[in-house]
Amino acid sequence: MTTHYHVDGELVPRTEATVSVDDRGFRYGDGAFETLRVYGGTVFEWAAHASRLEDTCETLSLEHGLSREDLRARIDETLEANDLQDAYVRLSITRGVQPGKLTPDPDVDPTVVVYVKSLPRGGLEGGPVWDEPAVVQTTKTRRIPDAAVPASAKTHNYLNGILAREELYDADEALVRDLEGNVAEGATSNVFFVDDEGLHTPSTEGPVLPGITRRVVLELAAGADVPTHEGVYEPAAVREADEVFLTNSTWELRPVASVDGIDVGRGPVTELLAHLFDRRVEETCY
Amino acid sequence: MTTHYHVDGELVPRTEATVSVDDRGFRYGDGAFETLRVYGGTVFEWAAHASRLEDTCETLSLEHGLSREDLRARIDETLEANDLQDAYVRLSITRGVQPGKLTPDPDVDPTVVVYVKSLPRGGLEGGPVWDEPAVVQTTKTRRIPDAAVPASAKTHNYLNGILAREELYDADEALVRDLEGNVAEGATSNVFFVDDEGLHTPSTEGPVLPGITRRVVLELAAGADVPTHEGVYEPAAVREADEVFLTNSTWELRPVASVDGIDVGRGPVTELLAHLFDRRVEETCY
Repeated sequence: MTTHYHVDGELVPRTEATVSVDDRGFRYGDGAFETLRVYGGTVFEWAAHASRLEDTCETLSLEHGLSREDLRARIDETLEANDLQDAYVRLSITRGVQPGKLTPDPDVDPTVVVYVKSLPRGGLEGGPVWDEPAVVQTTKTRRIPDAAVPASAKTHNYLNGILAREELYDADEALVRDLEGNVAEGATSNVFFVDDEGLHTPSTEGPVLPGITRRVVLELAAGADVPTHEGVYEPAAVREADEVFLTNSTWELRPVASVDGIDVGRGPVTELLAHLFDRRVEETCY
Repeated sequence: MTTHYHVDGELVPRTEATVSVDDRGFRYGDGAFETLRVYGGTVFEWAAHASRLEDTCETLSLEHGLSREDLRARIDETLEANDLQDAYVRLSITRGVQPGKLTPDPDVDPTVVVYVKSLPRGGLEGGPVWDEPAVVQTTKTRRIPDAAVPASAKTHNYLNGILAREELYDADEALVRDLEGNVAEGATSNVFFVDDEGLHTPSTEGPVLPGITRRVVLELAAGADVPTHEGVYEPAAVREADEVFLTNSTWELRPVASVDGIDVGRGPVTELLAHLFDRRVEETCY
């Protein structure tokens, strides 16, 4: 079956899903997006993703005029058309086509795209979507500071992460530092590590995307009496940790095998949290 | 006559000029571009623009495999098809469609778009393309530092400039500072000012795009025995200057009427350099 995407209100075969070259999403990366996981036909943490998308659009002053319900209906329609129960979904909203000026016109005819792809369920009864634990490398490329573009906004401007990924050799995720040299995040993931004091992850007071999976993992850890800390950390703290893992909506919890050539590996806290995460998916999507 | 763009080797009506929603230019802003001016059918400073485009693609590790001659032929073909002698041209090259991973595949099938628009000649015999001298406002949004994304790369990631423009009220160009608070550039322009010591513009050692018009103006000033300085400047130096103007390929030299509500205005050095610029256009394009 040909995959169908949802573009501006219409279901179209993927190969015919296009936008104008004058779309500001193409010309300037002037758009917001969310990556979602669907389990058993249900979007995981939809309300959280919808809220973050609203925050991004507010940061961009992008008033698209579409309700949360309308967006959700487009996602559900796309899943149904593709007969997908377990899927990756990307929802993009750009500022659409506007006259050839950089300054946005407040009157927006947005471009809305729903991308879908089958993605095995993972979780308690399936396997992980990642092939292997991640191999992580600290990059020279630093995270864009909030004063230039707020890290809380998830936008079509992704070159910062691409430049970090391009630096990697024999590694598949970047450990990106802020300008002061402290750990911010991966190119597409949040970073967690475990030491004698408990579970740590860089605070979103730094240039760190407030990941939905990140927040769920912090909740689950607190619920299981694992001490959690959001702080400021040097890369050495990650390299010397007992356990390191990454989170994003696609990977869920992905263990890290090594950081800058130093083996870290998985361990009991990662296992516990991955198990609790799978249970959360079961509870909320089935 | 319907405007035609050039998309991936084909001339197509503007309304049918599209790219896949899976194009990395759309998903991530993963592409390079140049804005060019055409006078009397000739691209102004083509070699300089082609070089900068090559630099941007090198920064992005985007090996598109197209020669400078091939790109120029596409531009000329587009100008001819639209019967344009005096025009704005945008040349974009993106990393094209690649599988759904952020890490780029080195094997690239690029997307190449030539946009054109009629733009009156300006210069010695015409009027300026800008309506009025610019009204400039210093913004809270700071320029992205080179450690995150090099400012020398002209890419489809333009949200930093968009966020700056969105802050403006009763102004039409931003004065964007670096993280240290020194003047970097406008959202789409380089900044020049004149005081007792001569002509000043922020050094490209800071996060400043090496503008082609900027370089031509520095050359013209040096040739006319105007002392030129590339340095590090606080916004106060611009506000207190005798003359302030902006440069980019579209505006050429655009005088600034005021900065943060303080009148600065044009003056003899701006007039001289604008005249010399017009002569340069005459000499090289006719």
